[in-house]
Amino acid sequence: MNAKEIDATPLDGRVKGIPGNVDTFPLGSIGGKGWNLLREDLPLPVAVLRRSALARNAAWMRAFLAASGAVIAPHGKTTMSPQLFRQQIEDGAWAMTVATTQQLRICRDSGIGRVVLANQLVGRQAIAYVLDEIKRDPAFDFYCLVDSTANVERLAAAARETAPGRPLQVLLEGGMAGGRTGCRDLAAALAVASAVKAAEPHLALRGVEGFEGLIHSDSPKDDAAAVARFLDFLVEIAVACEQAALFSSDKLILSAGGSAFYDIVVERFRRAEVKREFLLVSRSGCYLTHDSKMYREAFEHIRERHPEVEKLGAGLEPAFEVWAYVQSRPESTKAILTMGKRDVSYDVDLPMPLKWFRPGAGGANAVRAVTSGHVVTGLNDQHCHMTVPEDSPLAVGDMVGFGISHPCTTFDKWQVVPLVDDDYTVVSAIRTFF
Amino acid sequence: MNAKEIDATPLDGRVKGIPGNVDTFPLGSIGGKGWNLLREDLPLPVAVLRRSALARNAAWMRAFLAASGAVIAPHGKTTMSPQLFRQQIEDGAWAMTVATTQQLRICRDSGIGRVVLANQLVGRQAIAYVLDEIKRDPAFDFYCLVDSTANVERLAAAARETAPGRPLQVLLEGGMAGGRTGCRDLAAALAVASAVKAAEPHLALRGVEGFEGLIHSDSPKDDAAAVARFLDFLVEIAVACEQAALFSSDKLILSAGGSAFYDIVVERFRRAEVKREFLLVSRSGCYLTHDSKMYREAFEHIRERHPEVEKLGAGLEPAFEVWAYVQSRPESTKAILTMGKRDVSYDVDLPMPLKWFRPGAGGANAVRAVTSGHVVTGLNDQHCHMTVPEDSPLAVGDMVGFGISHPCTTFDKWQVVPLVDDDYTVVSAIRTFF
Repeated sequence: MNAKEIDATPLDGRVKGIPGNVDTFPLGSIGGKGWNLLREDLPLPVAVLRRSALARNAAWMRAFLAASGAVIAPHGKTTMSPQLFRQQIEDGAWAMTVATTQQLRICRDSGIGRVVLANQLVGRQAIAYVLDEIKRDPAFDFYCLVDSTANVERLAAAARETAPGRPLQVLLEGGMAGGRTGCRDLAAALAVASAVKAAEPHLALRGVEGFEGLIHSDSPKDDAAAVARFLDFLVEIAVACEQAALFSSDKLILSAGGSAFYDIVVERFRRAEVKREFLLVSRSGCYLTHDSKMYREAFEHIRERHPEVEKLGAGLEPAFEVWAYVQSRPESTKAILTMGKRDVSYDVDLPMPLKWFRPGAGGANAVRAVTSGHVVTGLNDQHCHMTVPEDSPLAVGDMVGFGISHPCTTFDKWQVVPLVDDDYTVVSAIRTFF
Repeated sequence: MNAKEIDATPLDGRVKGIPGNVDTFPLGSIGGKGWNLLREDLPLPVAVLRRSALARNAAWMRAFLAASGAVIAPHGKTTMSPQLFRQQIEDGAWAMTVATTQQLRICRDSGIGRVVLANQLVGRQAIAYVLDEIKRDPAFDFYCLVDSTANVERLAAAARETAPGRPLQVLLEGGMAGGRTGCRDLAAALAVASAVKAAEPHLALRGVEGFEGLIHSDSPKDDAAAVARFLDFLVEIAVACEQAALFSSDKLILSAGGSAFYDIVVERFRRAEVKREFLLVSRSGCYLTHDSKMYREAFEHIRERHPEVEKLGAGLEPAFEVWAYVQSRPESTKAILTMGKRDVSYDVDLPMPLKWFRPGAGGANAVRAVTSGHVVTGLNDQHCHMTVPEDSPLAVGDMVGFGISHPCTTFDKWQVVPLVDDDYTVVSAIRTFF
């Protein structure tokens, strides 16, 4: 799963997004084919990433981190693409974050040395794989979350038995009432931390972690306040654990951060009144591709909360597009397109038509903006229902480019995603491992 | 993509559902490993198919078709598994149905000779692939849908140019107001059929088709009536096309049918007052795995409408289960499990906890039914939120088996799905191609 292995992946029409009748070719040679989306060289639906937007988003996040003093462990679950992981590590990421041991395995096979499993480690196979990997590779720097003494005891027993030669490093997870995982109050957190302490040297408590990303109401101000309170609770846990001498002697880690509130994460954690130095680890997975709705709106709120980010450049922009054909105009105000639940996110918002193109009309300068009144009303497994104005120019055979909301659930629908230049010529492709 | 090629697929921990630290092995040897789900030999989440249920469901559908005089072209998009396609063809399926040319390509690579593209064929690459394949293999028997003269003219032009040596066979699609694709009235249908006739010998109108599966209200009786009306409309189109001599001289095809109303499809089409003999093609994709909610309820309605199906045996049963660990019990009435939007359907209903098991408690006889009050309230990308009763026995590390609603959107989340026997020992595995 180094670059060479991925470049050697054989592609043909069995892979969604690749023409049906081309000879099998290695993924790494796709950029040499001269394929262009607008010349209909790709079958639709197809998901593409705009290379220039990826590069600008990467640069923006580098600037944000440099200004904030935080490091990033981007959540790999978003893209599950070793090629993008590598780019993120080259961009200076401190680690990759994952949610499962299958995702961890992809990181390990891709040469990623430091991984945060931002999740509880449970189950015989998952625990065995992690401990074996720690034992096998002395350079492997691994972290997982704990939020219950039951889990701590299980991990301690397994570590004792496997004896990987160094402690299994854990982060104590704080949670919020009604939320996901994580200790709900200081007493519960201290009980778990004490259990970790009691399990030394098999376990080591390296820091405190939480996930604020589920906070979402109609009021951005209320959300920001709730996020800040939650982060302050994580700091309270860290301070209490420090006072009780429950952390291991290594550098303390404070980590939080989905892709919506990393500005608040940085702001609140910076003020943390712990005595020792600490590493501030944010974990956004979606900054690289951004999107056209959910994270676009979240980024607007970051701009409102912290206008100083304007100094960092133009800001994040959506890099992901999914293109489909109009296959039917069965009613004057309806179009059906060749794209469905198998091809594009639908869990947060339905896809948004951004652009359209009539094959043969020319190049990228003939791509037109979709006017208002074109609205996706539903997806079936393989179809998209769109309401259109009576006078919509869209005809059977036209191509429509959609923006997405929530990159994670679009990436996981594609095993290969071409990267395109600003003229929609395919310059390379990434492979994903879901 | 014959059985041998699929059996040779190398598996290791990079594939979801396979343990992280096993040596790479060929898929075909998985049944020899003696792995058992309840012994925690697989990492969770994992999706499994119960082999005995698959066999009983296949037998039930064979009996239903034998009793009804219909043939089936099961929709391959559901499973996208050549191994299951093969089983369906061996069970007597007349053809496979697909939704895209990538799915067609998988069928072709798997040796499927007859394929219905239950969709409009649009776009340069898709049209080129189909016509090239028809030209390349004289035995390839292909059908696609048409619902607009624009599309008919495009197909005719491409067929004229490619000259595959025989007509591109099309089925005229009827649709319903507010529905998906398909001509909304008889006049529109006849205009499209006439365009096909005018394009002979490049095109051939082989029959009439529709998809009734989107009809769904709170009233099963109203739904059944709406489905019947729609099917009668399709028959009306067929009768009119026959009277106008628009069909080609080959045997007429009448086709409809998702997985919810195939009893009505058979019933209404049988009465079709066309003069010539015709083939009645149903297209259910979901009968083989069935599910625990959406199609379970649909099947109850089939029983109510046609009590005579009781004679065919015990009826369809859910074959699909997704298992996950309890990773956290952060509140007395809440459990968080290691399964999310990446692992299980959520587009129609959230997954339903059916069974639970405490590792070490014994074998399949120690699997307990989940009691009422355990309800999934939401999924994140990689997490499941479940409300549980205060006195729920579920603890961190316990395993829970979930039923699903809508097999299509669970299959597409797994590249490999183990088949298990009634003791949850892995006996084989299928590969999918999404």
